[in-house]
Order: sequence, then C-alpha cells, then structure tokens
Amino acid sequence: MSNVKALPLVEPEAPDAVVPCCPPLSERPFTAEEAERTARMFKALGDPVRLRLFSAVASHEGGEACVCDISDVGVSQPTVSHHLKKLKEAGLLTSERRGTWVYYRVEPSVLAAMGQLLTVR
Amino acid sequence: MSNVKALPLVEPEAPDAVVPCCPPLSERPFTAEEAERTARMFKALGDPVRLRLFSAVASHEGGEACVCDISDVGVSQPTVSHHLKKLKEAGLLTSERRGTWVYYRVEPSVLAAMGQLLTVR
Repeated sequence: MSNVKALPLVEPEAPDAVVPCCPPLSERPFTAEEAERTARMFKALGDPVRLRLFSAVASHEGGEACVCDISDVGVSQPTVSHHLKKLKEAGLLTSERRGTWVYYRVEPSVLAAMGQLLTVR
Repeated sequence: MSNVKALPLVEPEAPDAVVPCCPPLSERPFTAEEAERTARMFKALGDPVRLRLFSAVASHEGGEACVCDISDVGVSQPTVSHHLKKLKEAGLLTSERRGTWVYYRVEPSVLAAMGQLLTVR
C-alpha cells in the first residue's frame, strides 16, 4: 500500500515551460512546429557558459543553487543572471525567490524528454 | 563564425562503445573545456532547420539520406548543404559520396553519448 502518487509529467501551473512534445528524432521527420519547440531547448545548452552554469546547478547539493553559489565561471554576475534566465525560458531550469536570493533548480522531466529525443531506432 | 571543428566525442579505438567526453551534466560542474566541446553538439541541434534535416536523415529508410531525399524543409539546397555540413562538423552526421550524391548518416554513438549527458542523478 502506498500513498505515493505519480508525478505529473507536465506542471500545469508552469505555462511558460517548454513541454517536450515530440517523438525521437529518428522516428519520423520533425514538422516545422516540432523543430521550433525542440530547437529552443538544444540551443539553450549550445553555449559553453550556459552549459557550465546548468551543470553547476544540476550538480549542486540538493539539485538547486542560487547565483551566489555558481558565479565561478569567469563572467560577471549580470551575465550569469542573463544566462540563467535563458535556461529558465527554455524550460530547463525553474526558479524560486527565497529572501535575498533566487534559487534555480533543474527540471528533470525536460532533461529526460530531451534524452528521449536522442534515442536511436 | 568559427572554423573550429568539434573534437571527437567517442574514442576512435572503441567505435562501438559509447564513451562520452564528459560525465552527466548533473554529476559535477563542467570545466570550461568540457563545456566548449559539448556545447558545439547541442548548438548544432539548436536550429530548427538543422533539427528538421537531422530528423529527416535519422528517420530515412536505412538511416541515411542524400540532399535529394530531404530538401523539403522550405530552404534552398545550398542552405540545406550548409546545415548538413554543420551537423557533420559537430560529429552528429557522417557522409559518403556515392556517384552524384553525398549520403548522410546519423552517428548513433554520438547521439547516445549526448543522451547520457542528460542523465539525471
């Protein structure tokens, strides 16, 4: 007997998040709309600074980090904040303000969906 | 536009094994070098036209296609060729000339390695 409920794949209260939409890339040719949606996620990880920041958040204790934790990538804090915003807009990170700082957290379902896109037939 | 080409993601002496250059993004913060190498692959898929072309090759019969097979994405054939070249430089496609046409094929080990990067702890 368990009270554990299945986590929803899609957070209904996060309408801005990019919800992965599409079959594996090798299943059939993507439509223009599918490609537009999916390319945004890949593009978000297609920048070395963003990739380092994303990795810093993803690997930080508890799976979340604030700007104060992860600014060691050789760019200014405004630039860090800019890139974190881009990752959030792509649906890869969520954020929550707690006191002085905004904390960022990886969105595992989006990562998993990206992984599925790369599944080879 | 940079002329720097993607470093091979897979060890050449183990063509069948998936050997990612880097651990999952959530394992530890990426170094600058790891981020540079990995961002190139994500960037290659971060364009809607490239993503459609990649999907068209990946899903084509036999897992390969020539430009003549996949030019139905609303851009000119030179543009198609340009994007296919970018995907090839990123290590996501290989190509082989046979007669008149160059045939493109997905590199499954690179895709699999990208998928591993997205593994969540």
